[in-house]
Amino acid sequence: MKIILDGMGGDHAPQEIVKGAVEAAAEISDEIIIVGEPEAIKHELKKNKYKGQQISVVPAHDVITMHDSPVRAIRRKTDSSMVVGLNMLKDGEGDMFVSAGNTGALVVGARLILGRIRGIDRPALASIYPDMTGGEPGMLVDAGASSESKARNLLEYALMGSTYVEKVWGRENPRVGLVNLGAEESKGTSVTKDAYQMLANSHMNFVGNIEGRDVPKGACDVIVCDGFTGNVILKLTEGVSLSIFKLVKNSLMESLKSKIGGLLVKSNLTALKEEFDYEEYGGAPVLGVNRPVIKMHGSSNSKAVKSAILRGLPYARENVVEIIKQEMLDVEEYIEEEEE
Amino acid sequence: MKIILDGMGGDHAPQEIVKGAVEAAAEISDEIIIVGEPEAIKHELKKNKYKGQQISVVPAHDVITMHDSPVRAIRRKTDSSMVVGLNMLKDGEGDMFVSAGNTGALVVGARLILGRIRGIDRPALASIYPDMTGGEPGMLVDAGASSESKARNLLEYALMGSTYVEKVWGRENPRVGLVNLGAEESKGTSVTKDAYQMLANSHMNFVGNIEGRDVPKGACDVIVCDGFTGNVILKLTEGVSLSIFKLVKNSLMESLKSKIGGLLVKSNLTALKEEFDYEEYGGAPVLGVNRPVIKMHGSSNSKAVKSAILRGLPYARENVVEIIKQEMLDVEEYIEEEEE
Repeated sequence: MKIILDGMGGDHAPQEIVKGAVEAAAEISDEIIIVGEPEAIKHELKKNKYKGQQISVVPAHDVITMHDSPVRAIRRKTDSSMVVGLNMLKDGEGDMFVSAGNTGALVVGARLILGRIRGIDRPALASIYPDMTGGEPGMLVDAGASSESKARNLLEYALMGSTYVEKVWGRENPRVGLVNLGAEESKGTSVTKDAYQMLANSHMNFVGNIEGRDVPKGACDVIVCDGFTGNVILKLTEGVSLSIFKLVKNSLMESLKSKIGGLLVKSNLTALKEEFDYEEYGGAPVLGVNRPVIKMHGSSNSKAVKSAILRGLPYARENVVEIIKQEMLDVEEYIEEEEE
Repeated sequence: MKIILDGMGGDHAPQEIVKGAVEAAAEISDEIIIVGEPEAIKHELKKNKYKGQQISVVPAHDVITMHDSPVRAIRRKTDSSMVVGLNMLKDGEGDMFVSAGNTGALVVGARLILGRIRGIDRPALASIYPDMTGGEPGMLVDAGASSESKARNLLEYALMGSTYVEKVWGRENPRVGLVNLGAEESKGTSVTKDAYQMLANSHMNFVGNIEGRDVPKGACDVIVCDGFTGNVILKLTEGVSLSIFKLVKNSLMESLKSKIGGLLVKSNLTALKEEFDYEEYGGAPVLGVNRPVIKMHGSSNSKAVKSAILRGLPYARENVVEIIKQEMLDVEEYIEEEEE
């Protein structure tokens, strides 16, 4: 496999990106092609004492920043590391593209440059979601690629997420849940009610509606919702978690006045917070496009970059795109019946 | 003022309801009419050693339970405490109805029996939402009365919430925020984009879009969203908060092995959890119907019942329904222009 890595995307590029690539290369035999400003990347490779042949550099002299408007950036910044990398993937010069750059631009770029899988109406962005009861994390789809979704889009998200979790994470028969405002199948909007029926009639392991309070409790492996709700869920989870950590810390520090008590509390909370970082768990896939694309968090350090590469490899190796393509052919007929 | 109290709704009815009424009566001169099974209510009044004239009982021999389907229950259970109470309110035999019963039935009953305020397309259920940075809580509208909303509904929610927070909570010029997936005004669904423009052009103190991560940080006084999103926000906040409390507790208890440390942690966390209960803050209003209705939490104890009565009184006293009615006349013309 040849992994194409966006050398310039993210808060800590190119330093942490290149360092992560070097660390990943030590554990696999696959090639890594870093796209970006050649001088800067070569400088970082040297800093990391890398002298091998496994990592190569492809020049791109522009960068898409967090402030760029996605569509405009993809169309105009043709010499950016992201656009060059996606074009290489499209042209078969690599098997997977990994980037910590502008999320909106990556989703738009993947759709415009690589194209949608036949039968997929809307590609989606997935996100890893913690199980706060201590179990393995789940995957939330859509994390915000589209703000509005029809019932068939929710079915597509379920199907793509389920396939990814099974093939890439190696979890058998993943439980698929639909985010809704009540557990009963009669609850929700016209869109979630229709999606419920489609999911119940599919071959997937559909466990039904999932209410907000069960989302953080590992109620399912694939959390399906529209991108607006997905965005609110992810950001609210972050906001509430951090606020509560802060409250607990302040409250305990105040009463455990001794320094030893304070330090103990602090180290415990830090350890807990790290559990939510999921650096270990790799990046999140863009799903529904014709080639494998992995999004890393913008603030990824070398450990996260290494993990995104290693954990993302099965997306390309197991040919997940082809499996989704086949599954879409199977369900296409069914969706058309439902929509009539 | 005459307060009509649903004596049979809620998990701890009639015991905690009657006890709360007796406690409230001690602090106000307003009449309280408890509707429900007369023997049971009189028994509770006796248990609480109540012998005054301020509290009276109106018989109703049926109860709407949590398992009843809302529309069906309101139509068929005509002798239930909820339906009898709402009819009394409609007929002017009281000034406000307070209930801890089935939320869906209360919203439907308020709409069917009392009618919508002229100009209000969809009544809404409000909910108190904590400020986890330690400030005063906000009000979230809609908490789930409707699952789908048009832009004009979001404007109505904002207007009703803003009026309530100002007149009932006494907070001047309340900050109104629109839940969205990004802070920029160009972000969101077609509905939130249109609502943004309507809110920006209104006379309200609109502070713009609020992202999920800012919702728990007291970013605004009135949190506006559709009922689906509102339901997810409330339940997810509960789920994440409780999960994190549990994680922190387990993690700290493990290392602070001494009994004293453990107890200290436990008492601190209990105190913090209580901060989120908002028993002190009273019930949540049903907004947009022709008379004042207050919903209490299903598990309300006497303290919560007392607080809902005392804190809810200005909803009737300040004639908030009339103020909303007047404001709707002002904005009606504007909404029609926007919708053309």
